[in-house]
Amino acid sequence: MTLTSVRPTPLLNISPLTPLRVALLGCGVVGSEVARLIIEQAEDLRARVGRPLELVGIAVRRYDQRRPGIDPELFTTDAEELVSRDIDLVIEVIGGIEPARSLILAALRHGASVVTANKALLAVDGATLFEAAERAGADLYFEAAVAGAIPIIRPLRESLVGDEITSVIGIVNGTTNYILDRMDTAGIGFAEALAEAQQLGYAEADPTADIEGFDAAAKAAILASLAFHTRVTGADVYREGITGITPADIASARDIGHVIKLLAICQLSPPIAGAADRTVSARVHPAMIPRSHPLAGVGDAYNSVFVESMSAGRLMFYGPGAGGSPTASAVLGDLVTVARNRLRGAVGPGESSYAARPVSEIGSVMTRYHLSLQVADKAGVLETIAHAFAEHGVSIETVRQNGRNANAQLVIVTHHARDAALSATVRALRKLDVVREVTGVMRVEGD
Amino acid sequence: MTLTSVRPTPLLNISPLTPLRVALLGCGVVGSEVARLIIEQAEDLRARVGRPLELVGIAVRRYDQRRPGIDPELFTTDAEELVSRDIDLVIEVIGGIEPARSLILAALRHGASVVTANKALLAVDGATLFEAAERAGADLYFEAAVAGAIPIIRPLRESLVGDEITSVIGIVNGTTNYILDRMDTAGIGFAEALAEAQQLGYAEADPTADIEGFDAAAKAAILASLAFHTRVTGADVYREGITGITPADIASARDIGHVIKLLAICQLSPPIAGAADRTVSARVHPAMIPRSHPLAGVGDAYNSVFVESMSAGRLMFYGPGAGGSPTASAVLGDLVTVARNRLRGAVGPGESSYAARPVSEIGSVMTRYHLSLQVADKAGVLETIAHAFAEHGVSIETVRQNGRNANAQLVIVTHHARDAALSATVRALRKLDVVREVTGVMRVEGD
Repeated sequence: MTLTSVRPTPLLNISPLTPLRVALLGCGVVGSEVARLIIEQAEDLRARVGRPLELVGIAVRRYDQRRPGIDPELFTTDAEELVSRDIDLVIEVIGGIEPARSLILAALRHGASVVTANKALLAVDGATLFEAAERAGADLYFEAAVAGAIPIIRPLRESLVGDEITSVIGIVNGTTNYILDRMDTAGIGFAEALAEAQQLGYAEADPTADIEGFDAAAKAAILASLAFHTRVTGADVYREGITGITPADIASARDIGHVIKLLAICQLSPPIAGAADRTVSARVHPAMIPRSHPLAGVGDAYNSVFVESMSAGRLMFYGPGAGGSPTASAVLGDLVTVARNRLRGAVGPGESSYAARPVSEIGSVMTRYHLSLQVADKAGVLETIAHAFAEHGVSIETVRQNGRNANAQLVIVTHHARDAALSATVRALRKLDVVREVTGVMRVEGD
Repeated sequence: MTLTSVRPTPLLNISPLTPLRVALLGCGVVGSEVARLIIEQAEDLRARVGRPLELVGIAVRRYDQRRPGIDPELFTTDAEELVSRDIDLVIEVIGGIEPARSLILAALRHGASVVTANKALLAVDGATLFEAAERAGADLYFEAAVAGAIPIIRPLRESLVGDEITSVIGIVNGTTNYILDRMDTAGIGFAEALAEAQQLGYAEADPTADIEGFDAAAKAAILASLAFHTRVTGADVYREGITGITPADIASARDIGHVIKLLAICQLSPPIAGAADRTVSARVHPAMIPRSHPLAGVGDAYNSVFVESMSAGRLMFYGPGAGGSPTASAVLGDLVTVARNRLRGAVGPGESSYAARPVSEIGSVMTRYHLSLQVADKAGVLETIAHAFAEHGVSIETVRQNGRNANAQLVIVTHHARDAALSATVRALRKLDVVREVTGVMRVEGD
């Protein structure tokens, strides 16, 4: 057996048998799977890292989080004490802002490298973490923070770092994708689909973070920051959830050969000669996409990320976006990489935010709308409505009338326009006498 | 503008303005695009690396390979002299075994890190290159060698390094995918589809390497080596091309809801209690896959790689598999990574072949066959044929009879069996009196 991946640098005069010491913060669904793999796959991990990995402690909130198969002596409720020990690698899978942030910062201060799955924290305060890692000369890796097991962070940070990425569009929340997929394929309503998702463990008892798009917005902030070499926080991301999606919306999408997905959309504005800096935008909202679009076929609780760049063209990444095992796979991949770096006295890529691009408001982003209107069925209605669009500089791609008399309905799909002009048009339509009700408003993407 | 990605180590006392010196070997479709990007994107590359990249020379076979927009002084026909200069990073995009191998080895001996797109060389003699890089303490990166712009090497080498990959199935040759896609969608024959591919620049004047599966076999060797932490060479890969595929085969696949793709299939045998080492297999051949399989929808000259692992589950990567720009994107990503490593006095992951797994012959791999037979239309035919299958321990999943009398045809799909048993069954069928002709034999995958 040859260990050709092991190249200890002259900096390290420790024995090849001295293990790297690993602390695990959190032992829930992901943490317990990470612990299991570190213990059960010890032999392979040792061969791949070139040094054994020793799990020296697991911080839990309460002792009843201890797991069978894991030495009970490893558990501690004192996470602060754990990260202050002589630790090489800290894995943070607690989630949330505090105490995760303080613990990660303490770990970095003590010289440990950190692997985290914490998208919420990275989206709120990534800059503080990256700067702390930088100061400490330690690694901060977070492949598990976006799209679970799908390798997307490393491709953006490294594989595509010589290219110019122009857009990243992803289905990055499995819970909402499951709900929308069920509404589409089983014809059930939002509440019923949510209840199903909760029963299957795809949605939490309090599903707010998923269904209101907060989780996807955090991931969009991380993706936009990496793709465009700038800083985008969760607060910069325009956000709409899926709680308002009705079976009528699903049917409207179907009528035009589309399907509704909750998308995270990150875009770099095109270069305009003589204009100021190129801007970035990041938004999360439900949108109708053509059933022929590669993201349309992403069913169940799967995730997928679609990347466009100047040289590489169109790339897609697909896989399970959540769950203990897939997330643990991403954590372990980072753990091995960070451990290898440490043995060589090196660090991987840090934050790259040199481009420092302004973030556009949703109003100035170019989008398309699909509108359903209940209208009075009389002569001149279409003219009045068309006038409202024209006044806002919005061009209509298609209009279709369904039903007659009291049930007359207009379905309108616009061309691209500034989102502010489109939403102003909707406000104007709502005030028209001939419009009984605007029954559906949704963005259309992916054409 | 802050350059937070720059973390010069104390090892390097050179000025932050001293450029890293880059030599480019080869200036064909890929090389000229790489040169263009290094020159035109210099500002972004400097920011991302933390140091300017200076293109100091381009080795070409003949001076008429010089390109507009590139300083003619950079060109040289003396590649050996170029790599012996004081170079930090060498990009090899000549392709083929020699002189590429000697030049890469010389570059490593001189202390340069190497980025290469050379799948043929890696598949034939990767071990020599990896060992030379190891000895030199330099990097050898090769994301562009498999599936063009699709990040697949880095995910296998790093993202999934904490997981156990059990299979990698890919469409890794764009030329053959284009040909098969056209045969399927346009109903044309192999020769016509090949001529089209040549006209579009998807196939070379001598298309042997593509259509006979040599190119895909080289990529399969690289993928299997990385996925299973072992050494697999091109010679270890079972290989069949697509020159024998007929419109009748395409129609047969369609009849059972399948489509024919040229697949590169790398598998790790399941663990068997008490058995010897787990083995790996790598093979390239056309196969029928269900139209519902994610790889079935990969059209045109696109590539896609499907990975299954114990923890991550099923992942898919999709994108353009060839062409100057996409391949250049992969080369530039490696260039930035290798340059960053160099500035930190570090190297990335080397070869990981510790598992040293035996490679299985095709005969012992479990596969399924689809067979079309012209048979005598008389009583007892099916019994005689079923007996031939049973004698070889091969179980039949479905039999269908098409036509009558002189045109009686049997279409048989088997269950999984050892490939040797399946091919022995075909040989036995050919000798039966009741079998007029075996008109089609193809493996079935992806169920």
